[in-house]
Amino acid sequence: MTDINETHDPALTSWIESANGPTADFPVQNLPYGVFSDGASGSPRPGVAIGDNILDLRLIEAAGLLPTEQPVFDGQSLNAFMALGRAGWSATRSALSRLLSTDGDSRLRDDPELSERALVPRAKCQMHMPVAIRGYTDFYSSREHATNVGKMFRDPENALMPNWLHIPIGYNGRASTVVVSGTDVHRPMGQTRAPGAEGPQFGPCRKLDIELEMGALIGGGNPMGRPISVTEADAMIFGYVLLNDWSARDIQVWEYQPLGPFQAKAFATTISPWVVTQEALEPFRVHGPAQSPVPLPYLVQRGAYNFDVQLEVRLTPDGSSDSTTICRTNFKHMYWSSAQQLTHHASSGCAMETGDLLGSGTISGAERDSLGSLLELTWNGNEPLELASGGSRSFIEDGDILTLYGRCRGDGYNVGFGEAGGKVLPAVDFTGET
Amino acid sequence: MTDINETHDPALTSWIESANGPTADFPVQNLPYGVFSDGASGSPRPGVAIGDNILDLRLIEAAGLLPTEQPVFDGQSLNAFMALGRAGWSATRSALSRLLSTDGDSRLRDDPELSERALVPRAKCQMHMPVAIRGYTDFYSSREHATNVGKMFRDPENALMPNWLHIPIGYNGRASTVVVSGTDVHRPMGQTRAPGAEGPQFGPCRKLDIELEMGALIGGGNPMGRPISVTEADAMIFGYVLLNDWSARDIQVWEYQPLGPFQAKAFATTISPWVVTQEALEPFRVHGPAQSPVPLPYLVQRGAYNFDVQLEVRLTPDGSSDSTTICRTNFKHMYWSSAQQLTHHASSGCAMETGDLLGSGTISGAERDSLGSLLELTWNGNEPLELASGGSRSFIEDGDILTLYGRCRGDGYNVGFGEAGGKVLPAVDFTGET
Repeated sequence: MTDINETHDPALTSWIESANGPTADFPVQNLPYGVFSDGASGSPRPGVAIGDNILDLRLIEAAGLLPTEQPVFDGQSLNAFMALGRAGWSATRSALSRLLSTDGDSRLRDDPELSERALVPRAKCQMHMPVAIRGYTDFYSSREHATNVGKMFRDPENALMPNWLHIPIGYNGRASTVVVSGTDVHRPMGQTRAPGAEGPQFGPCRKLDIELEMGALIGGGNPMGRPISVTEADAMIFGYVLLNDWSARDIQVWEYQPLGPFQAKAFATTISPWVVTQEALEPFRVHGPAQSPVPLPYLVQRGAYNFDVQLEVRLTPDGSSDSTTICRTNFKHMYWSSAQQLTHHASSGCAMETGDLLGSGTISGAERDSLGSLLELTWNGNEPLELASGGSRSFIEDGDILTLYGRCRGDGYNVGFGEAGGKVLPAVDFTGET
Repeated sequence: MTDINETHDPALTSWIESANGPTADFPVQNLPYGVFSDGASGSPRPGVAIGDNILDLRLIEAAGLLPTEQPVFDGQSLNAFMALGRAGWSATRSALSRLLSTDGDSRLRDDPELSERALVPRAKCQMHMPVAIRGYTDFYSSREHATNVGKMFRDPENALMPNWLHIPIGYNGRASTVVVSGTDVHRPMGQTRAPGAEGPQFGPCRKLDIELEMGALIGGGNPMGRPISVTEADAMIFGYVLLNDWSARDIQVWEYQPLGPFQAKAFATTISPWVVTQEALEPFRVHGPAQSPVPLPYLVQRGAYNFDVQLEVRLTPDGSSDSTTICRTNFKHMYWSSAQQLTHHASSGCAMETGDLLGSGTISGAERDSLGSLLELTWNGNEPLELASGGSRSFIEDGDILTLYGRCRGDGYNVGFGEAGGKVLPAVDFTGET
C-alpha cells in the first residue's frame, strides 16, 4: 500500500501548466477518471483529467507506466479498474500523481513523442458514460429535503416519517436511463390526475423538476447473503459524481402509492462525466450532522464520513446567454452518509456490485436558496423564481438547460467535479396507436 | 418469416422418446431455452430442453444446423439470442422443431456422432442463470392480491388504491439478487418495529414469505425517449419464467413509506432455469379479466394478452419427504398483462433493454387456496396452514424448501415450466462491527 497522503499535498504542482493555480478544477491533487473519445482515434477509452487535458490511460497503461498487473483500461468503461478495489486504486493514483507532478516520475514528461500522443486537449474530446451502471439506487438522505416534502404533501406537524431517522430511506431506480452530461432529455409523458378530476389523463409532464444530488460509485462488492459494515462500505466507494435525478412531480404524486416512484423518475438521470475519487476527497472529509437518535449498531459510523463539496445549480433558458443560479448548497449537509447508505443497502443480504450507483438524495440546506429542487425552491410552484434573463419559473420549461456544478476548495487549489447538464426537449407525442 | 404455427401442432412427436406422451413437460411443442453445464465439458452454455435431454445449442449452431447469421449461442447467457428479436426467435424455433420432430429435418437424428455429443441427459446437468438480468421490475397486477393486501394493511372498504385500475403499478427491484432455482436463500436481517415499540430493532426477519409470480423476459428494447405500444410490447416479450419474489413482510411494513419496498425484497428473487418462449405459449393465449374502467388509450389491448398457465406452490420442511401444496392458481387471472406492463414501463421514455425482467406481481385467484403468498394464505399469520408432514406454518421457517411449478395443458401434451425452488437457511449473524 502506497502512502496516499502525498497525493494531497497542497504544494504539489504539475508540469502541465493549465492544472495549476487557484481556478483550475483538475489539478494534480484531483485526478478524476472518465471515458472520452476524440475525432482522431475514435473509440471511447478511459482517461484522467489534468488541467485542460485528458491523459489517455489505455495508452500509458500499454506503455507500462501504470502499476496495474493486468490491463484494466483497455475497455470502454472504468468498471475493470473499479473492480480492483482500494489497494489498486491507491497504487494507480500514486503513479499518476508522480507522472504528472513537476518533481515526480519524469518518464512521461521527458518522452515528447509519448506525451504528445497521451495528452489530448479536453476541448477536442467528447465525454461518454464513465461507468457501465449496474444498479442505480436513489436515497432520500437530506433531512431538510425530506422535511420539506413531508410538509408539502403529508403532515406539516409530522413531516418526517417515523422510519426516517432510523433508516437511510431509498428505492431502486432505473439504471438504463442514467446518462452522461450533455444528453438531451425529452419531457416525459405520463399519467396525472388533475385536482378534483375523477380519473387520470395521459400527457406531457407539467411539473418537470431537477433533484441536485451526488452519486457514489461502488467498486468491488459483497456476495449475496454477506452484509457490509460501515467501515467496509466506506472503502468500497470508488468515487463520486454530480447527479441530477430528473423528476416528474405530477406523475409521481399520482403513481407512487403504495410502491414508490416509478415512471416519474425513470426517464432520465444525468451524471457528470468525471468520477472524483474518494481518495481525492480525503482532505475534505467532515462530520455530518449529529445523528439523534443514535442509529442502530449496524449503522453507527465513527469518524468523518461526509464531504465538504460546494454545489450549485444553474438554469439557462433556450437561446439565452444569461444563466441564473437557482441553488447553492453543500454535500456536507446530508444526514446519512453514502457509507451508511451502502451498509443499509446490503444489510438484508443484497449483493452489491462494481458499477452500482447510489444517489444521495436531493441535497437541500437550511437556507431559502440552498434547496436542491424546484419543488422546494418554488414551494410546489406557488412561489415562482425570477430569472436573470427575465421571466420566471415554477417548473422546467422546454428548452431550458439545467446544470449542476460542484467543487471542493482546498488550500490554494480546487478539487472540481465539472458539471452535469442537460437540455429539456418537448415531449414525444405518443398515443399508443401503431 | 417462417410459419410458426406448425411448431404447435398437437400431433407433432419427437424422435427423442422421452419428449412424447401426456406427462412430458418438455415436448417438441415447448422447446424452452436455458443455460446448462455438465461435468464433462464444464463451461455454461445455452441449450434447449427436449424430454429428458438438453440439446447443446452452441454445438449445433457451430455445426451449421441453425439459421442464425452470426453466432448467438457462443456465450454463457441467452442475451445475444434474445437481442435478435421476434423474426430470429421464430426462425430458430422452426429449425429446432424440424430437427427434433419425428418427420422433420433428419440431419441431427441421422448423425449419431453429432447427436451423441449434442444431446446431454438433463439429470447430469447443472442449470445456471439463463439470462444476464439487466433491470428487474416487479409489478402488482393481480386485483385479488392488491385487494387482499389493501384490506389487511389499509382500508378494508377501499382496499384498492385510486390509481390501481388505471396504472399497472410496479417498482424497480434489485437485479443483482435474481438467482436460479436451487440457490439457497439466507433469511434476511433487517429493521423491524414491534407493535407498540417506540423504535426499531435489527435482527432476522420473522415474517418471511414467498410471492408466486411469472417473469417476462424482454428481447430488444427501445431507445430512451421512444415509447412502446402494447402491440410492440407483446412482440418484445421473449418468454416467461416462474418467479418467486421472496419477501420479508415485517421489514417491508416498516421501511416502505414513502418510497416503496427496498431491503424487504432485495435479498433474493428465484427464477426457473427454463425460459418458455412466448411463441410456445401462443396456443394458451386467453383474454384477461375485463378491464373497467377502460384503460387510457396507450394501455388499451385488443386481443388475448393473458396466458393460461396452471401454477402451484409446494412447501417441504427440512428433511421431510412430504411436501404440501399450499397454493393452486393460474396466470390467466392477472388484471394487467405483461405487454401492458412493458408499455407502461416505457411510457415516460424509459429505455427498455434485452435482459430486462418484469415480475407479474403475486398471482392470486379468488379461491381460498389460490392465493400466491403466505401473507394472504394465513391472513398475515393469523390462520396458520396445516402441513401434510404435521405441524403448521404462519410464515416460512428455516430449512423450508419452497418450490413453484407451472404447466400449460394442451391437447394431449403439456408445455411445462419446470420448477423454481429454494431452501431457506438461517440468517447470517451481523452486528456491523468489524
